[in-house]
Amino acid sequence: MSNQANPAKTAITPRRDEDFPEWYQQVIRASEMAESSDVRGCMVIRPWGYGIWENMQRQLDAMFKATGHRNAYFPLFIPLSYLEREASHVEGFAKECAVVTHTRLEVNAEGKMVPASPLTEPLVVRPTSETIIGASYAKWVQSYRDLPILINQWANVVRWEMRPRIFLRTTEFLWQEGHTVHETEAEARQETKQMLDVYETFVRDHLAIPVFSGEKSESERFPGAVQTLCLEAMVQDRKAIQAGTSHFLGQNFARASGIQFQTRTGTQEFGWTTSWGMTTRLIGTVIMAHADDDGLVLPPRIAPVHIVILPITTKEETRARVLEAAQKLASELRALKYFDEPLKVEVDQRDIGGGLKNWEWIKKGVPLRVELGPRDLEAGTVALSRRDQPVKSKESLPVAELVRRAVEILNSIQENLRERVKQFRDEYTRVIDSKEEFYNFFTPKNSSKPEIHGGFALAHWNGSGEVEERIKNDLKVTIRVIPFDGSAEAGRCIFTGEPSLRRVVWGKAY
Amino acid sequence: MSNQANPAKTAITPRRDEDFPEWYQQVIRASEMAESSDVRGCMVIRPWGYGIWENMQRQLDAMFKATGHRNAYFPLFIPLSYLEREASHVEGFAKECAVVTHTRLEVNAEGKMVPASPLTEPLVVRPTSETIIGASYAKWVQSYRDLPILINQWANVVRWEMRPRIFLRTTEFLWQEGHTVHETEAEARQETKQMLDVYETFVRDHLAIPVFSGEKSESERFPGAVQTLCLEAMVQDRKAIQAGTSHFLGQNFARASGIQFQTRTGTQEFGWTTSWGMTTRLIGTVIMAHADDDGLVLPPRIAPVHIVILPITTKEETRARVLEAAQKLASELRALKYFDEPLKVEVDQRDIGGGLKNWEWIKKGVPLRVELGPRDLEAGTVALSRRDQPVKSKESLPVAELVRRAVEILNSIQENLRERVKQFRDEYTRVIDSKEEFYNFFTPKNSSKPEIHGGFALAHWNGSGEVEERIKNDLKVTIRVIPFDGSAEAGRCIFTGEPSLRRVVWGKAY
Repeated sequence: MSNQANPAKTAITPRRDEDFPEWYQQVIRASEMAESSDVRGCMVIRPWGYGIWENMQRQLDAMFKATGHRNAYFPLFIPLSYLEREASHVEGFAKECAVVTHTRLEVNAEGKMVPASPLTEPLVVRPTSETIIGASYAKWVQSYRDLPILINQWANVVRWEMRPRIFLRTTEFLWQEGHTVHETEAEARQETKQMLDVYETFVRDHLAIPVFSGEKSESERFPGAVQTLCLEAMVQDRKAIQAGTSHFLGQNFARASGIQFQTRTGTQEFGWTTSWGMTTRLIGTVIMAHADDDGLVLPPRIAPVHIVILPITTKEETRARVLEAAQKLASELRALKYFDEPLKVEVDQRDIGGGLKNWEWIKKGVPLRVELGPRDLEAGTVALSRRDQPVKSKESLPVAELVRRAVEILNSIQENLRERVKQFRDEYTRVIDSKEEFYNFFTPKNSSKPEIHGGFALAHWNGSGEVEERIKNDLKVTIRVIPFDGSAEAGRCIFTGEPSLRRVVWGKAY
Repeated sequence: MSNQANPAKTAITPRRDEDFPEWYQQVIRASEMAESSDVRGCMVIRPWGYGIWENMQRQLDAMFKATGHRNAYFPLFIPLSYLEREASHVEGFAKECAVVTHTRLEVNAEGKMVPASPLTEPLVVRPTSETIIGASYAKWVQSYRDLPILINQWANVVRWEMRPRIFLRTTEFLWQEGHTVHETEAEARQETKQMLDVYETFVRDHLAIPVFSGEKSESERFPGAVQTLCLEAMVQDRKAIQAGTSHFLGQNFARASGIQFQTRTGTQEFGWTTSWGMTTRLIGTVIMAHADDDGLVLPPRIAPVHIVILPITTKEETRARVLEAAQKLASELRALKYFDEPLKVEVDQRDIGGGLKNWEWIKKGVPLRVELGPRDLEAGTVALSRRDQPVKSKESLPVAELVRRAVEILNSIQENLRERVKQFRDEYTRVIDSKEEFYNFFTPKNSSKPEIHGGFALAHWNGSGEVEERIKNDLKVTIRVIPFDGSAEAGRCIFTGEPSLRRVVWGKAY
């Protein structure tokens, strides 16, 4: 297929507007971020995807430490009896548990290797760690002097998925889970909000994704929580992805685990706990928010490589000089700091043809591509391409100017990506004041593209779970978040006419 | 008990020479590094222990990246059939596997929560990842152009332990596992050796533990490996701890997993693979190598806190000024770089009494303690205590001198600790030339302290597994390592009189 015949040819097939779910899979494949494994629902995170996760980890970790948290590590396995201590908790996770029932393998009579020694109590592979961590905290906390406990864990967790989707829903995923204990309800609520704010800053400023933040309705709460705060992002098919949650657990888990302390007045009280988490799901959110029909588009702050230099070495006689100049430029760029760390610069010297190379890096979403050929050498220039601009666009600029402006250009890409997501979200977020309009908004206009619907609706609601249930059944639409701020004027529920304190955000969710 | 009545009172009871295994547990408890959990064999790594692991991780990770490796992540679960692909591998791990046989929990007829849905194929919780990673590599490798593959994974693994001991032998532990594929045998062997060298540098220079390095005898090899290289450290009860292994796997796992590539001449060949790992066991090694009768002693390079400042605030009227001076000193110290990172300095302002505070930090093994009281304030001095010196020793020095010399003092502690371990090891490593002397060396002299024996023996051996087996049965002594260098003169096996190419290192091992 020549470009003339099909000027709109893109690196990813299908395009977003053709088949969004398949486009998503193809972006991941083309960028070599991750792949499915033969273990149902479990993914392999390849170096490019893991490099993004490492950057996210390092940056979030610094934010946790700056707010007084320390890391620790708790067991992978949870005795079934622990999980049962909090009734709504075990109920919430029962369907998703992977259970270790045996240890040892032995060869049976038919010569087949089989599990050998049954455990007296089955062990659940942690779907989350409130109960196993609670058992430790119960030992550590005796007095108000032992509080607060401010601990985070980086870990893998397992929630059996019937309909896995890479990054977004996988049986095993990587995450961090913060677990804190406080002396008072007020402190615990403040911690819950503080960590949501940390997440919001991270998602907005590091992942370049502006979100709605607020509270979940009762039906969407974490099993066992008193209050669940969350962030909700809109991605390019106008659906919502939850991008971080922070739970105020009241004294529920403290009571279940026996986290009790002597107060300042000498009485015994249960601790007030919180938990909060972010997962590799965020990588899926980044893809769906930023990638385009030519592949991944990475916010510079989390890109494993900021700048790739592509030396053009087709002519044998200039090859050595071009490579030398490329390496020299790389050194100069690596001496620059981008958010306190050296710029990550790669020189792609592989002998596989310039076009192929260029497209590989486009599909990987590297923020800046720099071509450097014999003619550039003479002119002292390079050809710069930004991943936030059309892939064919190139700007020639003096080498010295690139070095001088590299960080500023990365900042501008980061800013552009965020602004683009914000505009998209605002365009497809609608204030809706009637039930009819609401149903219309969420009903696909084109039966061949059932996934395309309105976006987010800001509508009044009477606070009833029954209404939520009905809307969910009718439209697969749920309340994504009850926002803290904005649209806080009172009104009437568009479904029942009953009073409503504020508009809430409705949408279809991943 | 007053100090007069018992001048040798130590912070840890029992002392090392009284009961080494119990001393080890008490050091861990007193430092709040870790604790056992209710899940048999699984430990909780508390923030102080995890802080050490984070430092080890960060430093090792940088060394892996400097040698061209990238991180990735592969599934926690391994289908039983994968593990079976390499016969000696599955045999080696069969006894230690934890097996997931079910998903979902449901309430049974008696109202009890039980595992609900049996899996068609059981999943083993990874004891190591050669086979699951091999399945991915088989897909990624088509041609010699795809090689080498140089990947590392940071992960948790599970090997069911019958006799768990915190850090040293735990059912779940944290580790890194490198897995590489190469075009030629020579390259794979070179990688195997290179990573052992990386480990040796890390253990010697970062953990301050000099080791013997070399090869394992066949009986001690990793299940499925052609060659296992290893490091062996001697700890203070004169036993050996393996401190890192690097395996040349030949084509065994490539054949088992189908990692095949088209060679430069167009033929098909199996890849040559390696794997190499280091674990949280190293934290146990650090404790047993460096800690003393007053608790943990940390090499500065891996200490979560380098310097703790203890303001003496007993007098109300000077309290504010002392605290201010302590914070000012902390800021000045934090502005210093220690191996490219800011010095980690803590000011302990808790109101719990100076003695108690001081002992807490002693037991935690912080390299430098700095007392600052009203008199110091007037004199412009501080009182400095080094953890590598007796706990009561203190040196008064001007504040400015502390700031000027802090990094140099940390370096000197690091050096002292390493030298101390080396001297200890050399003292208890004996060249032995007769069977009688060998048996005598490894036979405890004091029946009430069966753990105290000779140490390491350098003795000639005929290369026979039968001899190894006999010695192991008689004395619980094994060949820890066949050294690369030193003592390489030929001789006669001290057990059989047969020819021997070199002395090997014998010892009792953890």
